Amino acid sequence: MSSTFGTLLKVSTFGESHCKGVGAVLDGCPPGMTLDEADIQPQLDRRRPGQSRLTTDRQEADRVTIFSGVENGVTLGTPIGLFVPNKDQRPGDYRQMSRIPRPSHADFTYQMKYGVRASSGGGRSSARETIGRVAAGAVAEKMLKEAYGIDIVAWVSAVSDIPSAEVDVQTITRQVIDRNLIRCPDTLAAGKMEALVARVKEEKDSVGGIVTCVCRNLPAGWGEPVFDKMEAKLAQAMLSIPATKGFEIGSGFAGTRLRGSIHNDAFVAADGRLGTTTNNSGGIQGGISNGEPVVLRVAFKPPATIGLAQQTVDFDGNPVTLEAKGRHDPCVVPRAVPIVEAMAALVLGDFALRQKTREK
Amino acid sequence: MSSTFGTLLKVSTFGESHCKGVGAVLDGCPPGMTLDEADIQPQLDRRRPGQSRLTTDRQEADRVTIFSGVENGVTLGTPIGLFVPNKDQRPGDYRQMSRIPRPSHADFTYQMKYGVRASSGGGRSSARETIGRVAAGAVAEKMLKEAYGIDIVAWVSAVSDIPSAEVDVQTITRQVIDRNLIRCPDTLAAGKMEALVARVKEEKDSVGGIVTCVCRNLPAGWGEPVFDKMEAKLAQAMLSIPATKGFEIGSGFAGTRLRGSIHNDAFVAADGRLGTTTNNSGGIQGGISNGEPVVLRVAFKPPATIGLAQQTVDFDGNPVTLEAKGRHDPCVVPRAVPIVEAMAALVLGDFALRQKTREK
Amino acid sequence: MSSTFGTLLKVSTFGESHCKGVGAVLDGCPPGMTLDEADIQPQLDRRRPGQSRLTTDRQEADRVTIFSGVENGVTLGTPIGLFVPNKDQRPGDYRQMSRIPRPSHADFTYQMKYGVRASSGGGRSSARETIGRVAAGAVAEKMLKEAYGIDIVAWVSAVSDIPSAEVDVQTITRQVIDRNLIRCPDTLAAGKMEALVARVKEEKDSVGGIVTCVCRNLPAGWGEPVFDKMEAKLAQAMLSIPATKGFEIGSGFAGTRLRGSIHNDAFVAADGRLGTTTNNSGGIQGGISNGEPVVLRVAFKPPATIGLAQQTVDFDGNPVTLEAKGRHDPCVVPRAVPIVEAMAALVLGDFALRQKTREK
Amino acid sequence: MSSTFGTLLKVSTFGESHCKGVGAVLDGCPPGMTLDEADIQPQLDRRRPGQSRLTTDRQEADRVTIFSGVENGVTLGTPIGLFVPNKDQRPGDYRQMSRIPRPSHADFTYQMKYGVRASSGGGRSSARETIGRVAAGAVAEKMLKEAYGIDIVAWVSAVSDIPSAEVDVQTITRQVIDRNLIRCPDTLAAGKMEALVARVKEEKDSVGGIVTCVCRNLPAGWGEPVFDKMEAKLAQAMLSIPATKGFEIGSGFAGTRLRGSIHNDAFVAADGRLGTTTNNSGGIQGGISNGEPVVLRVAFKPPATIGLAQQTVDFDGNPVTLEAKGRHDPCVVPRAVPIVEAMAALVLGDFALRQKTREK
Repeated sequence: MSSTFGTLLKVSTFGESHCKGVGAVLDGCPPGMTLDEADIQPQLDRRRPGQSRLTTDRQEADRVTIFSGVENGVTLGTPIGLFVPNKDQRPGDYRQMSRIPRPSHADFTYQMKYGVRASSGGGRSSARETIGRVAAGAVAEKMLKEAYGIDIVAWVSAVSDIPSAEVDVQTITRQVIDRNLIRCPDTLAAGKMEALVARVKEEKDSVGGIVTCVCRNLPAGWGEPVFDKMEAKLAQAMLSIPATKGFEIGSGFAGTRLRGSIHNDAFVAADGRLGTTTNNSGGIQGGISNGEPVVLRVAFKPPATIGLAQQTVDFDGNPVTLEAKGRHDPCVVPRAVPIVEAMAALVLGDFALRQKTREK
Repeated sequence: MSSTFGTLLKVSTFGESHCKGVGAVLDGCPPGMTLDEADIQPQLDRRRPGQSRLTTDRQEADRVTIFSGVENGVTLGTPIGLFVPNKDQRPGDYRQMSRIPRPSHADFTYQMKYGVRASSGGGRSSARETIGRVAAGAVAEKMLKEAYGIDIVAWVSAVSDIPSAEVDVQTITRQVIDRNLIRCPDTLAAGKMEALVARVKEEKDSVGGIVTCVCRNLPAGWGEPVFDKMEAKLAQAMLSIPATKGFEIGSGFAGTRLRGSIHNDAFVAADGRLGTTTNNSGGIQGGISNGEPVVLRVAFKPPATIGLAQQTVDFDGNPVTLEAKGRHDPCVVPRAVPIVEAMAALVLGDFALRQKTREK
Repeated sequence: MSSTFGTLLKVSTFGESHCKGVGAVLDGCPPGMTLDEADIQPQLDRRRPGQSRLTTDRQEADRVTIFSGVENGVTLGTPIGLFVPNKDQRPGDYRQMSRIPRPSHADFTYQMKYGVRASSGGGRSSARETIGRVAAGAVAEKMLKEAYGIDIVAWVSAVSDIPSAEVDVQTITRQVIDRNLIRCPDTLAAGKMEALVARVKEEKDSVGGIVTCVCRNLPAGWGEPVFDKMEAKLAQAMLSIPATKGFEIGSGFAGTRLRGSIHNDAFVAADGRLGTTTNNSGGIQGGISNGEPVVLRVAFKPPATIGLAQQTVDFDGNPVTLEAKGRHDPCVVPRAVPIVEAMAALVLGDFALRQKTREK
Repeated sequence: MSSTFGTLLKVSTFGESHCKGVGAVLDGCPPGMTLDEADIQPQLDRRRPGQSRLTTDRQEADRVTIFSGVENGVTLGTPIGLFVPNKDQRPGDYRQMSRIPRPSHADFTYQMKYGVRASSGGGRSSARETIGRVAAGAVAEKMLKEAYGIDIVAWVSAVSDIPSAEVDVQTITRQVIDRNLIRCPDTLAAGKMEALVARVKEEKDSVGGIVTCVCRNLPAGWGEPVFDKMEAKLAQAMLSIPATKGFEIGSGFAGTRLRGSIHNDAFVAADGRLGTTTNNSGGIQGGISNGEPVVLRVAFKPPATIGLAQQTVDFDGNPVTLEAKGRHDPCVVPRAVPIVEAMAALVLGDFALRQKTREK
């Protein structure tokens, strides 16, 4: 039951690395929206490994098919089935892992939980599971764009200790972000980041980073009190992405060091609505959107699977040296960009439908 | 529907600041556990405002009554109703706010969402809502302690820019933490924190801080893959607490700056099980516990309601100077400690029951 | 988790016969509706035992208090806490049952499930649990009446083998139904029913019956496809009432004996909408309302607790003769009328909110 | 969100008649169970139309593929994706219905709800939607059989006014039931039923019927109190099947005519457990299984789509005569047998997992 997310816009994903395919069922999408595979494929292409020398070398086409919920290019209001077949199946690469749990990977915990594992190791912890999310998120994004003019843009704001310069959250676009492989809008920083990733890949090691995301044009009043606060569901959504270690909304951890008199976002009248002069709240107060941009940050650890030799033990406790075979992703943050966008879209899409229940 | 949390151990809270009372219904607690009000009251006392000169001066007894689910001091397996009457009702203090939304408070967003507000302002965003959580969390904690030996300890690890020294997560206890009013185990830092809070209170301003929490003795294998990863539900739980801005598990944002070869937690055989030499994972891999302590950090912003004059606008957009009347909490982190513990207990209690469904 | 019902209008009930009280939390009720205890009490009074010589002699005041979610007589959009204290606590009457499970009662199954029982026997299977439902249902009813003009009327259509004459579902009112104690609008049948119940009570036996319910003025288009069809959720709601054994929508079991050409409800244009000439569908097609009255029937078995001697065995398997002590209800259907109405209101209230999510 | 069913064993179905295919995702199935397509196909074959002259003439192979959740023939504990491609796509047959809503069909209500319809009319109300349920139900059934020895058998107990003779619920098997096309174990009645259906088909009309189902070898103690009583979830499950109008558990509506002294199921010690001498309870008391066979009955109306001329109106209210083109099923009950079995298996499978959470 843990593969389903959302209250009214509900996504269920399925699939492991080496079964017939991966996908999602998205239930709750309103009827009457135009939709075909071309609306979804671009975000899958952005997520796909093997896009550049920076990431894993596996080549996967990841072509999506819409199974249901759409007729003559228009949504019916019924569940939208989305499917991407698996192609690059090489269980051989994973044989080593059947005896040795990779440090900081889910091999060990899946074995402890289920007593059986997929040949690829951590089963549903695989990055391939996120394909279903990205496909469903693209549908949610289209709904948000067409019905409310909302847009969602994420980018790499740090790789290891290389930060991006400050970004104008009001104007940043995916076009700007995709100008370089690392998906950092700060060209100077992007160059350094790419050089670092190339070096780390060479060294068979890995690095982490941070993805920042802005959601613009949300009306005030979306979100729910108490347990389903907008920041709470965003936090769950982001921490459900593999390899994440932290989440911030608005001022985040840095905001804990400010005085209230500085941190408070004073109201100001503008364009016939109340806006705020600053946005330490990150667009949310008390779990509910205030009409300012929602800004969040997600921490990604360095990938666990590395080619470098590691001293560890096998499942029986015998000391071993592990050098992971196969192709590994030295840095996930560029590929994580569309995943963060997808999760934000799924959260906001759900709140959009929930808000309708509050309207007169 | 957003006032309910949990899949199998399900808590529903109710109540605003100025109605008859606040409380919770906890469904799913196993039968046959001894339970009475004395198991719950201590955590409510730790949460209560007016405990010390550091926090708000409001005196609230907050005595809990168990309404149902317990007979002859033993749980029946049926919903446990928990209730705390409201006493200190002074709607007069809040009259000012009917015209002026407090900056960075939920007054504005509740008005936008519901078109009506409780006289106390943000309604369910009130800190008093957390009473139901703390009461229900105390029951969950007792269940976790008795059935699995799990214990949960939270403390203040920073107030504004004053950090606590490193804490040994294996041995820290609530007794140690409660030795000072600020609930920081580092006595030296605690003194500085208390002095800062006293000064800030004097200045009618507020400060933020960080609460760290450890959950010990979890078996390996708890948690769920994909959307209900343990870190994801913990993140939701923590970001659902009022005034939170960030969440970290294990290495958190700092971990993004490490190489994989350094960040990976190597396995080691110990005490007949596989442990890890480091704990950058924070006790969780792929959403599932690995048997190491679960360690998390939560960022709390400075409270929004301050006595200092603020330039803002009223609901009609007219510029006003706001100086909040009444008694305000200059720093919430000491009182947030039992709330963080309660939310951790509710998350783990739910996973405990869910894990049973996986057992042979 | 099984004490919660509804997706968007969510009711959670709590309480056993001999704890401090019973009640409910209703989450999702829209803000801005006038509400006080007087809106709720009448249905509780109709449910209350001891109203007449026909039912159990226990006298219970069952006064409801609204704990939260309402301020100055207006709903806030937050969870509405509802509470009724228990008064008539006589655990002594139930001592006998600690050794002997009553035939066809939940004493045995609760013991098997939980390994512990409330002193009153079946714990949450008690009729007293329905107080929380009736209170919450009254709130849902008010919302449906005010926002959509929907009204819901139930009545006793059979006691044992005495049927009521056909009733005009378009015009029947609660005033008419409450003219006699048995709540059957057919005066002639009502007299026979009352005589039978009086005789059965004299004989320390019990009888069953049928409650019919009509929901009028539903717009076309409410309900959901597949698993949450309107008839499916109504069936769940009704079969969740203690002592129910069957459910019918529209033509029910009798409809299975008709040809399609007779059973089909032909469309006809009237009042600017499409209506149907007959209503074998019971107002629902494919899980979704068609604008005609929703008509359903619920079967109630004869109450299990009777004073007549029964040959059975105790928990250890020893043969015993059981003559239940205390006061028993010889026929539940008159008191079941407001419970059926409450459950219908909770189901329709949920669909009302869900329908909003489909609107443009 | 209404296409998902179950709390811990969760099935989500997708697909309409004329999209790429139909299917289901089943989440919560335990790891380590052997499973392949051959475990699922037989029930799909029993559901398939075109099996005999009695039902619709459409020929559909309905071959299922397992997309995920199984590796090397063993379940992984992850979501099981199930898919059946659509083959017999003839939207042409349905063109007529774009103007005229079929009486007692979902054409009208879907149009009112969604403002758009699948070319086949009622979209998700199509019988083809049940393919996903039957596939998922077959997996649930295997789990129940292997882990608990539970078996589930359904049969046709009435077609129109022709009843089956009484059946021994302890011994009846699918082999016996499948001896004739109508799936009635009473050979004499079966002959009459088949003759009636053939005649009705000839006359371009349709007939209804009743399916009875028994679930054997359930342990005592399964099920949940209050809203998720076992009979309540079974009622929801059965009324969610297209064309159903009624549900009975145990004595059902007939039980309302009995006295309590007759209706009560006296306990008796047998085989080291407490059984009952009669089974008017239908194996359930207070929502929880008592160890006796669970026996339920489901009413199916005559199919709405008939070739006979019907006087009705089109969407604009103009009087028309409708003679449905294409091939229609004159009687759904034989094909409903595996659907009822599937829904029973999904309900019991969910309770099996939920019961684990109550165990010590």
